[in-house]
Amino acid sequence: MVESPGSKTSCPGFSKMDNSKLLKLVDMAAKAGVDAVALVPGPNFRNLFGRDFHLMERPLIVIVPTNGNPVAIVPNLEMASFEKIGFPGQVFDWRDEDGYLAAFEAAANALPDLKHAKRFGLEAQRMRAFEQMALARVFPEATLTDAHQLISSIRLIKTDQDVDLLREAISISEAALEATLEQVQIGQTEMEIRSILMRELFSHGAEGLAFGPIVAASDNSGQPHGSSRTDYQIKAGDALLIDFGASFGGYNADITRTFFVREVSEYNRAFYETVQAANERGKDAVRAGKTAHEIDDVVQKVLEESQFAEFRRHKTGHGLGLDVHEAPQIMRGNDEVLEAGMVFTVEPGLYRIGECGVRIEDDVVVTESGVDCLTGFSRELRLVG
Amino acid sequence: MVESPGSKTSCPGFSKMDNSKLLKLVDMAAKAGVDAVALVPGPNFRNLFGRDFHLMERPLIVIVPTNGNPVAIVPNLEMASFEKIGFPGQVFDWRDEDGYLAAFEAAANALPDLKHAKRFGLEAQRMRAFEQMALARVFPEATLTDAHQLISSIRLIKTDQDVDLLREAISISEAALEATLEQVQIGQTEMEIRSILMRELFSHGAEGLAFGPIVAASDNSGQPHGSSRTDYQIKAGDALLIDFGASFGGYNADITRTFFVREVSEYNRAFYETVQAANERGKDAVRAGKTAHEIDDVVQKVLEESQFAEFRRHKTGHGLGLDVHEAPQIMRGNDEVLEAGMVFTVEPGLYRIGECGVRIEDDVVVTESGVDCLTGFSRELRLVG
Repeated sequence: MVESPGSKTSCPGFSKMDNSKLLKLVDMAAKAGVDAVALVPGPNFRNLFGRDFHLMERPLIVIVPTNGNPVAIVPNLEMASFEKIGFPGQVFDWRDEDGYLAAFEAAANALPDLKHAKRFGLEAQRMRAFEQMALARVFPEATLTDAHQLISSIRLIKTDQDVDLLREAISISEAALEATLEQVQIGQTEMEIRSILMRELFSHGAEGLAFGPIVAASDNSGQPHGSSRTDYQIKAGDALLIDFGASFGGYNADITRTFFVREVSEYNRAFYETVQAANERGKDAVRAGKTAHEIDDVVQKVLEESQFAEFRRHKTGHGLGLDVHEAPQIMRGNDEVLEAGMVFTVEPGLYRIGECGVRIEDDVVVTESGVDCLTGFSRELRLVG
Repeated sequence: MVESPGSKTSCPGFSKMDNSKLLKLVDMAAKAGVDAVALVPGPNFRNLFGRDFHLMERPLIVIVPTNGNPVAIVPNLEMASFEKIGFPGQVFDWRDEDGYLAAFEAAANALPDLKHAKRFGLEAQRMRAFEQMALARVFPEATLTDAHQLISSIRLIKTDQDVDLLREAISISEAALEATLEQVQIGQTEMEIRSILMRELFSHGAEGLAFGPIVAASDNSGQPHGSSRTDYQIKAGDALLIDFGASFGGYNADITRTFFVREVSEYNRAFYETVQAANERGKDAVRAGKTAHEIDDVVQKVLEESQFAEFRRHKTGHGLGLDVHEAPQIMRGNDEVLEAGMVFTVEPGLYRIGECGVRIEDDVVVTESGVDCLTGFSRELRLVG
């Protein structure tokens, strides 16, 4: 497949791909009043086409009109991989030495119905601004809108197979956490503990990391996303917050547990147990038919009615799957109704800035009859080191 | 720092930060004719402010006008971390339950000089489309342009300290590769070898991965970015291409070596030696004062003049540092002049699609007197397994 830039490649592999997801996306887009959606590699792309590509400086974009066949703009050096997905439309590839604009122009010319004042829905939390700019240049009359949520909704309800992959990612993560805790010692730095955790994740079968793990002790745990330090050694009485996850088969575990080093003050125990209660009550509240708002409301009330109300900092959780942060957002004001097959985190936290933070995060799936908690690692207060 | 959305927080920490880089950026932006630049967390942000933040669904944006003080839009739950950077301007934070638009509006109101028909330079290869859309909404008369290269040019010339961190990332990577090769056996899958490599990277002190490693054997090596398979077992005569790197102190190694399993055909040996020659000749050609074009030209000519010319697929290399792919792009047509302190990859490759690919990638730094090759792992054809 060594072709000139902007060359047209017909992929006869239509039958190789399960097009039902693509048809569902087209149907949803039409109902939402957009004339085309545009996607880039990432969780939605993987869900639709079964394959990952790195998002780097080379744009790879798929445009799916609601009326007509999709087109793709693909870096030439990804063509061999791209051909394997059996893309059901024209492909315009481009080479480094020629740049990508000619391929964008050729793709636009192949979509004459979209030339005039049409509405594009972009995967805008994933697509980069330079890709949007290239689209705006070749479709100068188009209105480009954010359709990230619409596009991602193809992944909102997980299949049993999806959940099985997530269970495996969680199982690997929990085994790695246990193995890590057995090696934690007073005097280690956060970065040392983080390295042990990563080694254990890959020893236990992780295919990748859901995200760069957070290992934060003492005052550093008091910020929700603390960066691990190389110049602080853990000491007795410190909180040790670990937020991490393996990925497996594309699915991402996302687990937080907070431990204490050797000893815990009565105040910190009460602090911990407040978060633990919020975590429990939140999970117990999950049912199909309830709204995301209701779950967060239960959790926030436990925190608000405690002596630690002022230390609340964030919502209860977020959806989880091929992406680490996806719908549904479990937060007040989100009236999205929970349905069987939705997967999300329940992760209340309290943060005394400059002192101590506690977060306890589980991953749950809504079922027909209630809720399954996919994470099993104990939430009882545990001393380590 | 539990504040209402859109609240104004003055950061008195001006003195904590080295503002010389920010002033340099302002100077470059003014010379390029833009009235403001807008950045998001990532390599440039880290270089300017010394800290990382995760890019997730919550926008964190810094707007730096060429005339006046910068402003930042920050998720409330990142405020404790953000305050540590000593940001020299106003900060507008926002909370999940309120959304981010009010903070964007407040930030725009704090920049009245930018309200009318001004030119914004965006970090467009990093900023997402939804962030651009929020900027476009609160600066409706602005022209938003791609200033990724301009902004990134603050990192083009590496300091000795930067290079030392990269050397450490490379040293960790090469030790991990050697340890991995000692465990490679016929019958393993690509994914198994990839897991061993990742375990070894973190055992040897990696703080993170530069990118998800590529471990591709046999026909899978014939595509430049093959995904590791779980259903193919390596066998005698296979090529085994490994492209990977540890990150350390934010700096990213990027190394590729290609091995053969137990034996190699004469044809594949000639194929390998052609890439090896291109790699050597390319590195030898590097000098301050030459252009990026000239280096790629030397490399491409070696490949073009060989019997394998048709199997070329990509340029010689890319800049390397806090980002894995950055300037300078080592490719024909790029007349950028090489200067001491530039760091980039020299990574010629040849790919017989469906059969076999070979890439040999080194990381080099341009010096006053010539070039230092930072990678030391042998490039001689090696049999493994």
